Amino acid sequence: MQPKFPSESVTTLTDLVLPGETNPLNNLFGGELLARMDRAASITARRHSRRICVTASVNHVAFNRAIPLGSVVTVESKVSRTFNTSMEIYIDVWIEDRESGIKNKANEAIYTFVAVDETGRPIPVPPIEPETELEKQRYEAALRRKQLSLVLAGKMKPSEATELKALFME
Amino acid sequence: MQPKFPSESVTTLTDLVLPGETNPLNNLFGGELLARMDRAASITARRHSRRICVTASVNHVAFNRAIPLGSVVTVESKVSRTFNTSMEIYIDVWIEDRESGIKNKANEAIYTFVAVDETGRPIPVPPIEPETELEKQRYEAALRRKQLSLVLAGKMKPSEATELKALFME
Amino acid sequence: MQPKFPSESVTTLTDLVLPGETNPLNNLFGGELLARMDRAASITARRHSRRICVTASVNHVAFNRAIPLGSVVTVESKVSRTFNTSMEIYIDVWIEDRESGIKNKANEAIYTFVAVDETGRPIPVPPIEPETELEKQRYEAALRRKQLSLVLAGKMKPSEATELKALFME
Amino acid sequence: MQPKFPSESVTTLTDLVLPGETNPLNNLFGGELLARMDRAASITARRHSRRICVTASVNHVAFNRAIPLGSVVTVESKVSRTFNTSMEIYIDVWIEDRESGIKNKANEAIYTFVAVDETGRPIPVPPIEPETELEKQRYEAALRRKQLSLVLAGKMKPSEATELKALFME
Amino acid sequence: MQPKFPSESVTTLTDLVLPGETNPLNNLFGGELLARMDRAASITARRHSRRICVTASVNHVAFNRAIPLGSVVTVESKVSRTFNTSMEIYIDVWIEDRESGIKNKANEAIYTFVAVDETGRPIPVPPIEPETELEKQRYEAALRRKQLSLVLAGKMKPSEATELKALFME
Amino acid sequence: MQPKFPSESVTTLTDLVLPGETNPLNNLFGGELLARMDRAASITARRHSRRICVTASVNHVAFNRAIPLGSVVTVESKVSRTFNTSMEIYIDVWIEDRESGIKNKANEAIYTFVAVDETGRPIPVPPIEPETELEKQRYEAALRRKQLSLVLAGKMKPSEATELKALFME
Repeated sequence: MQPKFPSESVTTLTDLVLPGETNPLNNLFGGELLARMDRAASITARRHSRRICVTASVNHVAFNRAIPLGSVVTVESKVSRTFNTSMEIYIDVWIEDRESGIKNKANEAIYTFVAVDETGRPIPVPPIEPETELEKQRYEAALRRKQLSLVLAGKMKPSEATELKALFME
Repeated sequence: MQPKFPSESVTTLTDLVLPGETNPLNNLFGGELLARMDRAASITARRHSRRICVTASVNHVAFNRAIPLGSVVTVESKVSRTFNTSMEIYIDVWIEDRESGIKNKANEAIYTFVAVDETGRPIPVPPIEPETELEKQRYEAALRRKQLSLVLAGKMKPSEATELKALFME
Repeated sequence: MQPKFPSESVTTLTDLVLPGETNPLNNLFGGELLARMDRAASITARRHSRRICVTASVNHVAFNRAIPLGSVVTVESKVSRTFNTSMEIYIDVWIEDRESGIKNKANEAIYTFVAVDETGRPIPVPPIEPETELEKQRYEAALRRKQLSLVLAGKMKPSEATELKALFME
Repeated sequence: MQPKFPSESVTTLTDLVLPGETNPLNNLFGGELLARMDRAASITARRHSRRICVTASVNHVAFNRAIPLGSVVTVESKVSRTFNTSMEIYIDVWIEDRESGIKNKANEAIYTFVAVDETGRPIPVPPIEPETELEKQRYEAALRRKQLSLVLAGKMKPSEATELKALFME
Repeated sequence: MQPKFPSESVTTLTDLVLPGETNPLNNLFGGELLARMDRAASITARRHSRRICVTASVNHVAFNRAIPLGSVVTVESKVSRTFNTSMEIYIDVWIEDRESGIKNKANEAIYTFVAVDETGRPIPVPPIEPETELEKQRYEAALRRKQLSLVLAGKMKPSEATELKALFME
Repeated sequence: MQPKFPSESVTTLTDLVLPGETNPLNNLFGGELLARMDRAASITARRHSRRICVTASVNHVAFNRAIPLGSVVTVESKVSRTFNTSMEIYIDVWIEDRESGIKNKANEAIYTFVAVDETGRPIPVPPIEPETELEKQRYEAALRRKQLSLVLAGKMKPSEATELKALFME
């Protein structure tokens, strides 16, 4: 399959934080943000693969900044790396100050999606070709994350996780 | 106030059509689309004015194409013209074919927002300066729409609506 | 087809404004009101035509009064005019003061619905026969609105819009 | 306090059954219907008392007929009897056949509300004066239901429940 | 059919009260609690019968204590008695103090469910065998409630309701 | 502070999969499951700490099995390890076959919560004391996950992550 660029499937979901989506501290409820990121990431996966895509795992989500009621939140998702039938999707979340208009990074997350056919069986996806510096860094790190997740799931021996091993041998 | 460009406040809300948002024909429910457009447009109004903004009117929404369950829908909103304390926001809605990736125009809509201070009182907004050909056309037409809405509301005599009158005199 | 009266398909949707439906000023969110009006109007269209009905356009919605959290809101929708396969639905929105019980008009809106068969194809609807003074006024004005929407969509020449033209010639 | 008629606080909530509100048999989910009836009944209680009202109990709800996806459902609530600070609200639920336009009774329910002041303390409500035959029947039966609920809650001795006792002595 | 114990189908639904689920006094909205109880009870009915189950009636719900925003609410449902094709489900609702961790009873409710086959026709369910003291008490009382509901619905003569009659004869 | 056992704060959220919560393959939508797990885990964190708790990160979620519409889903969350102001919460998700009653593991997830005071500042939590074999294993593994997350965030040098290093040195 022809490789594609991350910019071809980038997805932007800009929306408000309404009162029905907040926690008792009046910030965006964690579960609602997880759901929005899942929707954006699943669209990116679908745009890249042109297939039905299902969430396979959420590898890492850091909630660094609370997002107050009334905020404008931008969820941006991009394919960071592909592995045969799966795609790692990197998601950046920004909030925007109403008065200054300045955007601040609030969170980031990494989700993995699998492309499936109509019967739900995994099916190969086109490879990704990173272009920007950031895309290349994330592409590299994705392999370590993949090995890590295989090691933690007991599907790869630590000794075979060459990328990871190197990290700890330094 | 310093004029701004439409591109400075354009807002993109890309999201899925989930089963809980459909009508009995399995298409996106009209009311849900109206709500999504309202959210996107209110963010555009807020980005342009850096004020709290409230919906003043929905001037025209054409539902030309049904949007089926599972679609990826992109709602894009831009300021088309400003009038002292109000902003006309033009909204384009696209759906995307999963297999071909082609985007088709599904609907368009025009909403008007008013910027208010903390007490809810209207407050002036920066003027807009259209750049592209389409932005200029929509800017021109906005004046006719404004006069029309004043005439229909009985707040302007038809004989004073010079822009509109010309249209029917041709 | 036998003509029907507006009173035969009038629809009343009285409901509360709950916290999950408000905007940052603690008033009913515009998008939620648009959705409620769409649901009421679609029931009116269906009662008049006894067909599946889909939203064709939202022609005019004026948000004149904010509707605070906890309000009792009454949405009342009536057929104002029919045109072969489409129905113009006029919607009045009232809020009610809890202590005095007095109802105040908060908004009004005009939606157009099309009746369709099971395959989604437009199908004729019974004519409407206005009875009250207000129903007759709205019936008359509906023709001007129809011509206007055709002119604005480029589907009718301004010179052929006789009803509208007269208005600006006065 | 001046007595009021049931017709002064009757509340009508007509709405659709959307896909997000159904159970696995594709009928309106019981919990959603309970919530709609609670909203309508709380508006009736508020209209009668002009006070904040809270649900005190749900005394009887019979789900006689399933309500299929896409139905038009009318929930109508009326005060059936008042007791110092509480109001018994009788709710009738109708569904409407799209093709024939015929309305069929689907369910009925009885809720009790208490009027409270701003601090949440119970406060007296105006008495009710039934007018129609049905209103009078329900008014009579309400006393038996009241005694029954006191007996079942252990707050009244069965021997003191004169209305009820008579029923079983016949 | 082999009898079962209530403990085999007990269902626990512990969840938060989020801002979108409150009434104007900032307590859990009655309708939302009714919906949660219905979901828990329908799972209990299904676990006991291993059939599709539909809500037949809500016999009694007492809202004794308001449940404030941010509370942790536990809904626990158990089969209290079975009658050929129907099951009476007893529901206890607890709220938990965050600081002390103490659980307080907030409400209780009684729902009746009917087991149905794929076509919606009632089908027998296994009998229940109460074990604890409370389960036995509720089992006994269920028969009186059943007779009562038949009497109130006009399906049983008061004179035949032996269990109930005894209560008032004491 | 006095140590606590995981069993003291275990939280069970059993609920149905309703039509409004599914994806286009008619399975539970990933985002909705993430939200349910977040709600259950935040209750566990709160029960353990008796403090307001906010989601700090989602470390690992594996979606191994699709959860079809109509399923009964049990989300069970337990504290697996504490670190001064944070708690790692381990979540197991089970689905239950209606006919056989057999429960199958569908997913598992690891979330981290931080306890905060009323101003949102982190505050120490009681230590946890694992009891069962599984609780002890997860307690041990939590340290490796913690180091891993610090290494990946660039807050710990790989060479200092002694637990992890050992893993790769084997």
